[in-house]
Amino acid sequence: MRYPSGITQPKRESTVKKQTIHYGRRGMRFEEMINQSNEYYLQHQLAVVHKKPTPIRLVKVDYPKRSAAKITEAYFTEASTTDYNGVYQGRYIDFEAKATKNKTNFPLKNFHEHQIQHMRACTKQGGICFVLLWFSEWKRCFLLDFEILDEFWQNQKNGRKSIPFSVIEEKGRECTIGGIPYVDYLAQINIKEA
Amino acid sequence: MRYPSGITQPKRESTVKKQTIHYGRRGMRFEEMINQSNEYYLQHQLAVVHKKPTPIRLVKVDYPKRSAAKITEAYFTEASTTDYNGVYQGRYIDFEAKATKNKTNFPLKNFHEHQIQHMRACTKQGGICFVLLWFSEWKRCFLLDFEILDEFWQNQKNGRKSIPFSVIEEKGRECTIGGIPYVDYLAQINIKEA
Repeated sequence: MRYPSGITQPKRESTVKKQTIHYGRRGMRFEEMINQSNEYYLQHQLAVVHKKPTPIRLVKVDYPKRSAAKITEAYFTEASTTDYNGVYQGRYIDFEAKATKNKTNFPLKNFHEHQIQHMRACTKQGGICFVLLWFSEWKRCFLLDFEILDEFWQNQKNGRKSIPFSVIEEKGRECTIGGIPYVDYLAQINIKEA
Repeated sequence: MRYPSGITQPKRESTVKKQTIHYGRRGMRFEEMINQSNEYYLQHQLAVVHKKPTPIRLVKVDYPKRSAAKITEAYFTEASTTDYNGVYQGRYIDFEAKATKNKTNFPLKNFHEHQIQHMRACTKQGGICFVLLWFSEWKRCFLLDFEILDEFWQNQKNGRKSIPFSVIEEKGRECTIGGIPYVDYLAQINIKEA
C-alpha cells in the first residue's frame, strides 16, 4: 500500500509477520498421509481421489507484460464443501480428514455447518460420505460414517460438543496405519446400494 | 519488489497493467450458465456438483496482527483435474465445460493432457465422464462422452486437432438451453452400469 508523502505508515503495518504457510502442523501431517495414500490408490487404479484446491478470494491481480499473471492481494475463504472427493468402484466418495490431540473425544468444532450440509446432500444422492479422524496422541485413525457424525452434530444443542473416543472405537472402523498405502481407508469403506 | 536505492526499476515494471479478472469472456459466460444449473440441481436435490476452486501456487502470505491472513504473492497454476465433479444418483460424475466461437469444429487445444488422463482414470473406476461443449455462435450445447473425446485426442498425432461439428451433432447429446435450469445437462447423462 502506498501512503501520501509525509504520512507515516500506521504502526500496525510494521508488525506484519511473514511466516511460512502451515495451516496447523498437526492437520498438515495427517493431510500428507492422506494425500500419499490417494497417490497410491491412483497409481494402482484403485480409486481416483483428490484434495480440492484451497479456496481463495481474489482481490487484485497484476498482468505484467510477458509474464504470468501475479496475484497481489487475496484471502483464504471458507470451503463450502469438504476437502476430498472422488470415485471408487463407480461410486462417489466424499470426506473430510481431521486431526486432534485430544485423547478422549473428537471435538465437533473441527467441522463447519456448510460441510455437514454438503455431506448430507451427497448422502441423499447416494454418495458415500465419511470423516477420517486422526488421534495424534494415539496414532490411530478411524473412518466414521457421516450418519454418526450427523447424529452428534444435531445433538450439539443438548450440550455435547464432541464425539467420545469410545463411540468412535465402537462405531467407527479403524484404518491400518503405516503400511502401503500409509492410511488404508479404502479398505474400511462399506459400499451400500444407492 | 524493492530495488537498492539509486537503481531505477526496469521499465517493464511501469507497464504493469491492472485488469479485472476475466479468464476469457466467452468461457466465463458458459461457466456461469453451468454454475447456475448446478445451483438448481443442488436446491432441488437432483445432484450435487460443484466447480473446484481455481488452483493457486502460494508464494507469500502476510499475517497482520488481528487481521485475516493476506496473500501478497501467488500465481495461477494448471489444474491437474477437471473443473467439475459430483454425485448424481449415487454415481460419480466428472466433466469439463468449454466454449468455442468456432462454427465448424471444437478445437482440442481447449483440453490438457492431464485432464484427459484424469478422465481416463475416472472412467476406469466406473465414473461418468464427459465434456460440455458450447458453440457460442450457434448458442448450442452438447454433452459428449469422454470416450469420443479420447478417440479424437489419441488421433491428434494423425493431424486432426479438432472434433468436427458434424461428429458432435451425431455422437453428442444436445442439452436444452435457456430453460430451468439454464443448461439441463443432467437430462443427457446416460447411466451405464459400473
